Amino acid sequence: MSRLTLYDTTLRDGQQTQGVQFSATEKAEIAAMLDALGVDYIEGGWPGANPTDSEFFASAPRTRATMTAFGMTKRAGRSAANDDVLAAVLDAGTRAVCLVGKTHDYHVTEALGIAPDENLTNIADSVAHVVAQGREAIFDAEHFFDGYEANPSYALDCLRAAHDAGARWIVLCDTNGGTLPDRVGEITRLVIDAGIPGERLGIHAHDDTGNAVACSLAAIAAGARQVQGTLNGLGERCGNASLTSLIPTLMLKEPFRSTLTTGITPEALATLTRVSRRLDEILNRAPLRAAPYVGASAFAHKAGLHASAILKAPQTYEHVDPSTVGNARIIPMSNQAGQSNLRARLADAGIKVAPDDPAPARILSTVKDREDQGYAYDSAQASFELLARAELNALPAFFEVERYRVTVERRMNAMGRRISVSEAVVVVRLGDQRVMSVSDSIGANGEDAGPVNALWRALGKDLGSWQSSIDEMTLADFRVRIIGAGTDAVTRVTIDFTDSRGAAWSTVGVSPNIVDSSFEALVDAIRWKLIRDGAA
Amino acid sequence: MSRLTLYDTTLRDGQQTQGVQFSATEKAEIAAMLDALGVDYIEGGWPGANPTDSEFFASAPRTRATMTAFGMTKRAGRSAANDDVLAAVLDAGTRAVCLVGKTHDYHVTEALGIAPDENLTNIADSVAHVVAQGREAIFDAEHFFDGYEANPSYALDCLRAAHDAGARWIVLCDTNGGTLPDRVGEITRLVIDAGIPGERLGIHAHDDTGNAVACSLAAIAAGARQVQGTLNGLGERCGNASLTSLIPTLMLKEPFRSTLTTGITPEALATLTRVSRRLDEILNRAPLRAAPYVGASAFAHKAGLHASAILKAPQTYEHVDPSTVGNARIIPMSNQAGQSNLRARLADAGIKVAPDDPAPARILSTVKDREDQGYAYDSAQASFELLARAELNALPAFFEVERYRVTVERRMNAMGRRISVSEAVVVVRLGDQRVMSVSDSIGANGEDAGPVNALWRALGKDLGSWQSSIDEMTLADFRVRIIGAGTDAVTRVTIDFTDSRGAAWSTVGVSPNIVDSSFEALVDAIRWKLIRDGAA
Repeated sequence: MSRLTLYDTTLRDGQQTQGVQFSATEKAEIAAMLDALGVDYIEGGWPGANPTDSEFFASAPRTRATMTAFGMTKRAGRSAANDDVLAAVLDAGTRAVCLVGKTHDYHVTEALGIAPDENLTNIADSVAHVVAQGREAIFDAEHFFDGYEANPSYALDCLRAAHDAGARWIVLCDTNGGTLPDRVGEITRLVIDAGIPGERLGIHAHDDTGNAVACSLAAIAAGARQVQGTLNGLGERCGNASLTSLIPTLMLKEPFRSTLTTGITPEALATLTRVSRRLDEILNRAPLRAAPYVGASAFAHKAGLHASAILKAPQTYEHVDPSTVGNARIIPMSNQAGQSNLRARLADAGIKVAPDDPAPARILSTVKDREDQGYAYDSAQASFELLARAELNALPAFFEVERYRVTVERRMNAMGRRISVSEAVVVVRLGDQRVMSVSDSIGANGEDAGPVNALWRALGKDLGSWQSSIDEMTLADFRVRIIGAGTDAVTRVTIDFTDSRGAAWSTVGVSPNIVDSSFEALVDAIRWKLIRDGAA
Repeated sequence: MSRLTLYDTTLRDGQQTQGVQFSATEKAEIAAMLDALGVDYIEGGWPGANPTDSEFFASAPRTRATMTAFGMTKRAGRSAANDDVLAAVLDAGTRAVCLVGKTHDYHVTEALGIAPDENLTNIADSVAHVVAQGREAIFDAEHFFDGYEANPSYALDCLRAAHDAGARWIVLCDTNGGTLPDRVGEITRLVIDAGIPGERLGIHAHDDTGNAVACSLAAIAAGARQVQGTLNGLGERCGNASLTSLIPTLMLKEPFRSTLTTGITPEALATLTRVSRRLDEILNRAPLRAAPYVGASAFAHKAGLHASAILKAPQTYEHVDPSTVGNARIIPMSNQAGQSNLRARLADAGIKVAPDDPAPARILSTVKDREDQGYAYDSAQASFELLARAELNALPAFFEVERYRVTVERRMNAMGRRISVSEAVVVVRLGDQRVMSVSDSIGANGEDAGPVNALWRALGKDLGSWQSSIDEMTLADFRVRIIGAGTDAVTRVTIDFTDSRGAAWSTVGVSPNIVDSSFEALVDAIRWKLIRDGAA
């Protein structure tokens, strides 16, 4: 067994993702998460390049993993000791320092505008300077694969300069992401043949052709013993190689499983889905449903034939057991679903249906009608359960909303400041009682939180004997999509709730009016909670 | 040069995507789009399996590509001619018919519960029956790679049964998606060595390990001459191999570019980004920004160092020219962006800044502050332009909104029907004029379209001399995200507008109140339009 080193660059290359902007606090949280997962290196950012990275390193969390600062080799015309950019990187005081340098002759002469030999000196001197400070030096060979195609002997000279100066790792970067897996494997073998041992070689791949994972595997198969990547494949352009995809493949699949070890335990692997989702939460990104291993759809069996086979023997349509990566099997609802899908989903929800009950056919037909109107139940299991219960006459009335009114006003206040005020009035019938509730949406911070919040507060203000259940609920997120276009457009609102007992559920509402859609989803969320709490 | 056949299964396997549900009309539009792109086969669905597929085939569009119906091999205990499921597939009258059949002995004996030899007969008889009807037969070898690992000789016998019965294509399916690229390549070579020629072999890969594209390329490199996939990688679980990624790689990159031809012209390749986005529009899915080749971020250069090099020589950080696939380079805004990014983006917007103007530093700082508050300018270029213009004192006042009020009411109408009514009042100052406008949001269909619509109508009702510009605008989409959590949560609204001159632009608003966020984005959208129309 050979040890494979995992090098995470979520906090550095992952920060290059369009739309992603970490705060220093978020970086610290992610670093702790990566450390708990068990990666070997955490590249934290580029100290001195921006205030966030400087702030992060100034109070970087203590990690078991080797915290690494990123920077570039010294510039021409000054010594490594006198390069202020390099000094800022070293000042971060990390155990390891990774320096990017050129290895493509065109970039050396055109972009840097220096002689090829001067670049070799810059690499060697910079690496030697890091080593002389008692740090571990890592050399990031920028544009290595393109450079090798253009001028193999110069590209190899650059690697040797870093190697001979004492770099612990030499990382082959496919900076532009255009090299295909077979060629990455071949060139990695040629590098090893040229005298750089695989135990000192890393691979850094990008997903510009959709092959970042395959390129990484090809380099590892060729002998490279460090792999770089990011959680959820974040990164510049199309992203970096996704560690979230690579880690399970390396641990669960041949030829890697029986020839390599990593620092990740099976227990840590079982947290991978949670780690992936948590990162999306921090970044406020919708998780990619189709993500390998960790996506919500990764073990979702929509085809009727698959779903019925899965119920007999999961391995028939699953390449790994979803629990090994902390994920779960899903039998989603849709009009493609056969009766076996539907019955499995009802059983998941604890709804028993006799084998000869004709209700499943009615439920399928109602789902189909609703989907035609814009509803989507795949991501709103709670609303589906309520629909099924209604068809099965197992949905208590609980309460009825007679009317509501929501007002949003923006104007100057008495101080001449522009303010917004949202207010909701809800009239509810509870048995023979009629309850009128009103709420604004002013939060603890004195700010108005908008009409959906006001509506939620008014609706949840007084529901009689069920109030204790309602008080446990937290509105966690809501998503809005316009379905269709033009005059027939409707708004689909999906709302996620959690409660203090650890439950999480999602409901859906559809209407041309966003407040109405939200209202429908809010009412569903309350009904689901009351059923779960046994109020029925 | 050898001809590679492209087989699209967006309308069949793509329909297995969680959350995707095509109508027959949408299927027809997608088929026409695929035909214009130049794929060789369009698999339209499974006639008889569900009403949508039956309806689609009943009036399938005439295509240059071979329209193909999907089904399964005949069941045991009846002849091919007497199998009603198979008959429904043939009744669709397509030129080609693709039948899935088992090739993994475990599935034959356990799932089907029949003897291995009986399965061979089912395959041979079904294929022969299709051929006897004068159709082209395609055999979809389910679980082939797993089957080969378990029992290679039986798996090969299944392929031979189809081959000898006259199947034009035998497609090696990695149904569970767990086989890695190297092994796909090896097994494909072994199949060819066993006597099934590559000219009759296809590959059908899934993305469960993130390697669907690489597995497809490995099979092609080994000699397979048909590749199956879907637009945007739609499909069961993690999706199928993405043709949107595969087609450019096959046409633009070695060793494929100089050894293979496809039915796609360079002109058609240049429509690929549009085709990809149009599919997402039809499905109401947010396009994947990081998608290889066609994603909005695929040629986005966020790192300051990259952006400045790109301006000098694009090939320094681009693996292909974005225009070859109809995409475009983007220099996004963010606090990581250096001055070169910012100046490039201002130039894109037609805003000239003198080299010694200190405004860019102020703009960067304002962008940073706004991003801290929840704004995101990467996807709202128009709002960024307005921000930059404000800092450069180049943003005319146009108009000022003194106040607005929006009301949403839900109640019973006089007929006892539950109705919603939204109404907005807006008071605007136009120079020394004060204009008060009111609007509801009742559409041509008599339905209420909600508060944002009412607000947009009231705001756009009377803006004096600019009214003709406003009347050209169409609100195309809006997206909502909650940023942060708990009491400090804000709502970010991004609105997309188009106009009758062909322009498309996006703006962003942030507030705890969703109506306020929307209002801010609406006002930005109007201001941007007025600047573009030269109203300033």
